[in-house]
Amino acid sequence: MDSTGRRSDRRASEGRPLSVAVVGATGAVGEVLLDVLAEREFPLRELRLLASGRSAGTYLSYGGRQLRVLEARPEAFEGADLVFFAATGDLSHTLAPEAVARGAVVIDKSSSWRMSPAVPLVVPEVNPEALDAHSGIVACPNCTTIGVVMALAPLQRTAGLERVVATTLQAVSGAGRDGIEELEAQRSARAGEAPAPSTFAAPIHDNVVPLCDALDDDGHAAEEIKLVHETRKILDLASLPISVTCVRVPVAVGHSTSLLVSTTRPLDPAAAREALAAFPGVEVVDESRGDVVPTPADVVGRDTVVVGRVRSDTGGQGLALFQVANNLRKGAATNAVQIAETLIERGLLTR
Amino acid sequence: MDSTGRRSDRRASEGRPLSVAVVGATGAVGEVLLDVLAEREFPLRELRLLASGRSAGTYLSYGGRQLRVLEARPEAFEGADLVFFAATGDLSHTLAPEAVARGAVVIDKSSSWRMSPAVPLVVPEVNPEALDAHSGIVACPNCTTIGVVMALAPLQRTAGLERVVATTLQAVSGAGRDGIEELEAQRSARAGEAPAPSTFAAPIHDNVVPLCDALDDDGHAAEEIKLVHETRKILDLASLPISVTCVRVPVAVGHSTSLLVSTTRPLDPAAAREALAAFPGVEVVDESRGDVVPTPADVVGRDTVVVGRVRSDTGGQGLALFQVANNLRKGAATNAVQIAETLIERGLLTR
Repeated sequence: MDSTGRRSDRRASEGRPLSVAVVGATGAVGEVLLDVLAEREFPLRELRLLASGRSAGTYLSYGGRQLRVLEARPEAFEGADLVFFAATGDLSHTLAPEAVARGAVVIDKSSSWRMSPAVPLVVPEVNPEALDAHSGIVACPNCTTIGVVMALAPLQRTAGLERVVATTLQAVSGAGRDGIEELEAQRSARAGEAPAPSTFAAPIHDNVVPLCDALDDDGHAAEEIKLVHETRKILDLASLPISVTCVRVPVAVGHSTSLLVSTTRPLDPAAAREALAAFPGVEVVDESRGDVVPTPADVVGRDTVVVGRVRSDTGGQGLALFQVANNLRKGAATNAVQIAETLIERGLLTR
Repeated sequence: MDSTGRRSDRRASEGRPLSVAVVGATGAVGEVLLDVLAEREFPLRELRLLASGRSAGTYLSYGGRQLRVLEARPEAFEGADLVFFAATGDLSHTLAPEAVARGAVVIDKSSSWRMSPAVPLVVPEVNPEALDAHSGIVACPNCTTIGVVMALAPLQRTAGLERVVATTLQAVSGAGRDGIEELEAQRSARAGEAPAPSTFAAPIHDNVVPLCDALDDDGHAAEEIKLVHETRKILDLASLPISVTCVRVPVAVGHSTSLLVSTTRPLDPAAAREALAAFPGVEVVDESRGDVVPTPADVVGRDTVVVGRVRSDTGGQGLALFQVANNLRKGAATNAVQIAETLIERGLLTR
């Protein structure tokens, strides 16, 4: 299935089939990762589904077969070529080196390794060459970061980046199954009977919550700091000024970002639209054809990053735009599988 | 009732009771306006409820009495001291001069008169002195603008304003009853059976829509342009650079704004919090006491503008903060009634 109408023709299937393990297979991202592996016909010789002890023992289906979920322990990585971590940072921190020690390449969706200098942080359309220097672990950026850099990279290449201001509107699935279930429980509760918030700092149904992850002593949320540092690393702009506020919204799937971008060289909206539309994996909504705007609903089940509302900023600071991406697919699972495909293409997965 | 814990002690009841008309009494703002007049014990001698021909003939209750809604026609303003317009721009454009011609002062919630040089555009805590020059019509700002200027004014007074970047997250009730009903209908519909969007450009349930009102030829939404021009007029900063993106979110009541504020003189977060907390009608959430953040749910039924997430911007441009206000109360009805109270106090309502 080509859900985006734009996916690259590159297929991993040219290579030999691989032994692949998925840690966190029972989570929100893990589930989508299995879907994406199947959709993209990833060349599997063997698929091991792993999870924390709590979830081990359950069964998941893949390609019509029921697979038992095993506990993620170091020995489970013996003989694996490739291990996807779609689990908590703790699990990845402990177990990723164990997988690498056993000869596997790890593609990690947690935040554990992203800022390590020896670990490439990769969005394949943006910085695939970073993979060449990997030493066993490759990090997949935060779901919000991926959508943002997919919109920034074409502008960077065309006109250089001077400054970025971002306000994100993030779906509850960015907080995993717990986030989805918390919204659902509040939506279906009778007035006054909704369970107290636990995943989010306040009720999320019929509300927005300007806090993603915990605050540091300076009042910045962890998600905001991630977006700043990861964007700088991926775009190789170590001191790019990035102003960011992250807000959780009552949407199941699809992260949005309101962006204000100051470029080094002048860039008018028409040229920006052209650069964006020419970038692989990006689709531009042209609202001059009617009041059509990008929304999270447009990326449900899709990998394409959709950008619209491209215009000159009313404050004279450059370009304003609005970007949406599916946080579970391009923001997580699809990007991780694309990393694997790119490793194969570049001959970087040999044991 | 003092729903905010902060409302001014000023009461209009010191003056003589007035003959008051409300145009648009059956709308979302009109309904709240009647509540606010009653809560604040506005000194009424007579209350005339008016609406377009479509809604005339229905009954609304006020102070335990059932009042018949009459058609808003020029003759209906005979003998009125004060007329609130909480109706469409068209109705206000046509009828406000008729009310003024009959000796009434008009407080208009529509956008018809806001940018007319002869019409004061007033948030009573911010620029009450602008009322002194009125010549019959006083404009109440857009619901989004009111919350934003309530947060900006204390920073302006303390450190001057250099530049503002705003992304709004606006409740559906900002689009009136139609907006509320559209969200409700989509929420209660079975999967795949939701009625097509009409008030908003895309489904609003489980989605966000980065379009409030129509787009102009340059790709700016009318709501965005309003926020720029109205903020400049109220703060008396004709060329303040304001970058703005307005987004509709699936929230019934309460507009939020993510703000980035560059001040003329240095202003640290502690001093900003102090200035904000000292401003009448503003409450500051101090998240250093735990992960507590301002959300729309905090302003349901309240007039206070709540500000939090006050911090130094990660991009080095100044202060970041997050502001929420009840768009139907302080953003509309309460601000209109406060304008009336201020007119009385300043002796500006004499016929």
